[in-house]
Amino acid sequence: MPLSEMIEYEQAGPEVRAVYDDIMATRGTDWINNFWKVLANHPPTLRRTWESVKEVMAPGELDPLTKELLYVAVSVTNGCSYCISSHTASARARGMTEGMLGELVAIVGMANETNRLAEAYQVEVDERFRGPPAG
Amino acid sequence: MPLSEMIEYEQAGPEVRAVYDDIMATRGTDWINNFWKVLANHPPTLRRTWESVKEVMAPGELDPLTKELLYVAVSVTNGCSYCISSHTASARARGMTEGMLGELVAIVGMANETNRLAEAYQVEVDERFRGPPAG
Amino acid sequence: MPLSEMIEYEQAGPEVRAVYDDIMATRGTDWINNFWKVLANHPPTLRRTWESVKEVMAPGELDPLTKELLYVAVSVTNGCSYCISSHTASARARGMTEGMLGELVAIVGMANETNRLAEAYQVEVDERFRGPPAG
Amino acid sequence: MPLSEMIEYEQAGPEVRAVYDDIMATRGTDWINNFWKVLANHPPTLRRTWESVKEVMAPGELDPLTKELLYVAVSVTNGCSYCISSHTASARARGMTEGMLGELVAIVGMANETNRLAEAYQVEVDERFRGPPAG
Amino acid sequence: MPLSEMIEYEQAGPEVRAVYDDIMATRGTDWINNFWKVLANHPPTLRRTWESVKEVMAPGELDPLTKELLYVAVSVTNGCSYCISSHTASARARGMTEGMLGELVAIVGMANETNRLAEAYQVEVDERFRGPPAG
Amino acid sequence: MPLSEMIEYEQAGPEVRAVYDDIMATRGTDWINNFWKVLANHPPTLRRTWESVKEVMAPGELDPLTKELLYVAVSVTNGCSYCISSHTASARARGMTEGMLGELVAIVGMANETNRLAEAYQVEVDERFRGPPAG
Repeated sequence: MPLSEMIEYEQAGPEVRAVYDDIMATRGTDWINNFWKVLANHPPTLRRTWESVKEVMAPGELDPLTKELLYVAVSVTNGCSYCISSHTASARARGMTEGMLGELVAIVGMANETNRLAEAYQVEVDERFRGPPAG
Repeated sequence: MPLSEMIEYEQAGPEVRAVYDDIMATRGTDWINNFWKVLANHPPTLRRTWESVKEVMAPGELDPLTKELLYVAVSVTNGCSYCISSHTASARARGMTEGMLGELVAIVGMANETNRLAEAYQVEVDERFRGPPAG
Repeated sequence: MPLSEMIEYEQAGPEVRAVYDDIMATRGTDWINNFWKVLANHPPTLRRTWESVKEVMAPGELDPLTKELLYVAVSVTNGCSYCISSHTASARARGMTEGMLGELVAIVGMANETNRLAEAYQVEVDERFRGPPAG
Repeated sequence: MPLSEMIEYEQAGPEVRAVYDDIMATRGTDWINNFWKVLANHPPTLRRTWESVKEVMAPGELDPLTKELLYVAVSVTNGCSYCISSHTASARARGMTEGMLGELVAIVGMANETNRLAEAYQVEVDERFRGPPAG
Repeated sequence: MPLSEMIEYEQAGPEVRAVYDDIMATRGTDWINNFWKVLANHPPTLRRTWESVKEVMAPGELDPLTKELLYVAVSVTNGCSYCISSHTASARARGMTEGMLGELVAIVGMANETNRLAEAYQVEVDERFRGPPAG
Repeated sequence: MPLSEMIEYEQAGPEVRAVYDDIMATRGTDWINNFWKVLANHPPTLRRTWESVKEVMAPGELDPLTKELLYVAVSVTNGCSYCISSHTASARARGMTEGMLGELVAIVGMANETNRLAEAYQVEVDERFRGPPAG
């Protein structure tokens, strides 16, 4: 059960409705998922978070599918069930196959393993890996 | 300073040398980075970890660059400096531009933020996001 | 379902009852929440944890509400649902408004984001921020 | 050594300079700390992050010192050295005493401990702690 | 509800069945727990993970009970409910008493606390603790 | 550089000296490691932390070496360099061989990997693993 109520469109004030409208227009859908309905308890956080997510996930040098895969990888590492579920759904909608999901999960698992091996032995960064690339 | 000595090729026994040889052959390089030299203190871990990483990072349904980007995303989330440095170097070698790095870091930051927003409010997973995709 | 049984007051031995009595007396309530009932499976951990929490959360240079807000911030970062629920309840009982909760959650989200931005780029600590303050 | 170059004011383009100017004006200082100089490698992330931090950390129902304390609590939990150093400096500038720092650190330690005790025993949330407060 | 279907023995192809057979033979049981049934969606991950776990958890210089205790300690730190439940069951089967579980949980809690105290104050490693032991 | 000064025995007040004396007497040594010298900035935290660590790490149903191994496992998972260094030194002093360290690190790595695999697929806990053991 969520910590705060979910704000439905009908109950929402104009600031929240404007964000909901933009979410639906941007995504071409007619529904709002629970994450935004709970954030709506604090309208400035709803607005700022949506604007940031919209900007960060827009197509850029990385394509939208790759961006969703990265979102899933972080969410798995943090063990956030809601975020795993919602971003896996988005990734599937953008073309992620079950085979790609399998490879993604395998990499996340390995990275979490080798991160701890490197921490355990306190491996020093090789000279060649240090600093920004030569300009 | 690492917790255990680094094992150089010259000091290494045959089991470790075989792994070092395979690392250099697979990568087409003539050097071994510090991570493997420290793992060589426990040869079964060196061998198993290398074989796993080699299998997981081989081209599949995800291309090698995407795989490196995912590795960096996890390593940043865990704050593993060594892994950030080494996998950023690999990603650059596979074509990651500075613009792509900027977008990757932005996504990792946002995902870490929204993961906590979802946890804080204990958002329930929407019915549409639940379970495996319809077969 | 918890990993170990919950020990009710009636079943409890004198060492556990003494802690339960002190919890209720300190808080001015007549019930014990589930956290303590499960810790009671290991009486030394029950006693030590309660004494530590009682000492740490007592009024000091920081007021009790600020202390609860800090507890919530850590619990959200770690994704501990039980702790988020119980310490949010305590914070509300000490005067946390829904607006304060919204600001708290926003800060926790931003800090989790910028922590990863700083880790990703391995930013060096500015000279001015280093070490203890000048005496 | 940072992963990307630090962009000094003199080298910066107009988009980055505008953010630097706003940081200095908002803070009433004449210098920029390293975090922003590295983020400047990706101007959209610099701008968005600064605007978000500025909004989130502005005085609200929580006062600026409490906000900095929360930032430090999260940064300690995540082990981000840069963020601990910079936000501890900010908190001291807003009036955090060494005694307050001691209490803050003690709470962060205890919360990290009890979060794991609750996870270990998989304690169920008490009925009284569930859901939003009665309206 | 899991993110992908669980693959039962009857539905499984020969590669998956071979792993299931080895799991049951190695453990001397006639059932497969849910973890492996979900991993079976990506047979290479199923095979590689099982072979790695089998190798790592086999008796060595550390006995099987100690190995299970370590697994539980990590799983509690990461807050992974499934892993806590399954490895606690394995540890009990190998002789872990409730008293040992209580001590284990107490240590995990304390380590999570002191880890943050050390990070908060950015304690420098004592000269005596640095590097590999003198040969 | 630590965030607060280190308090040497000579500078310390009687409350801190009493703890330092007890640390040296309990351990049979004549020196204090940096962790305690920094905690001494907040004497109640120094005292409470030392008393808790002393109680938790004392011989019980788990032997002192096993307890140190568990401490190292948590510290590696959290990436706390100071704690890895100090508790590895303690474990070596209690008989941990380099082979045992290798096995420990391998388990910590695997557990961090499989924790994420279980989270990724949101595996449901098997009926047989649920709840406390039958009494």
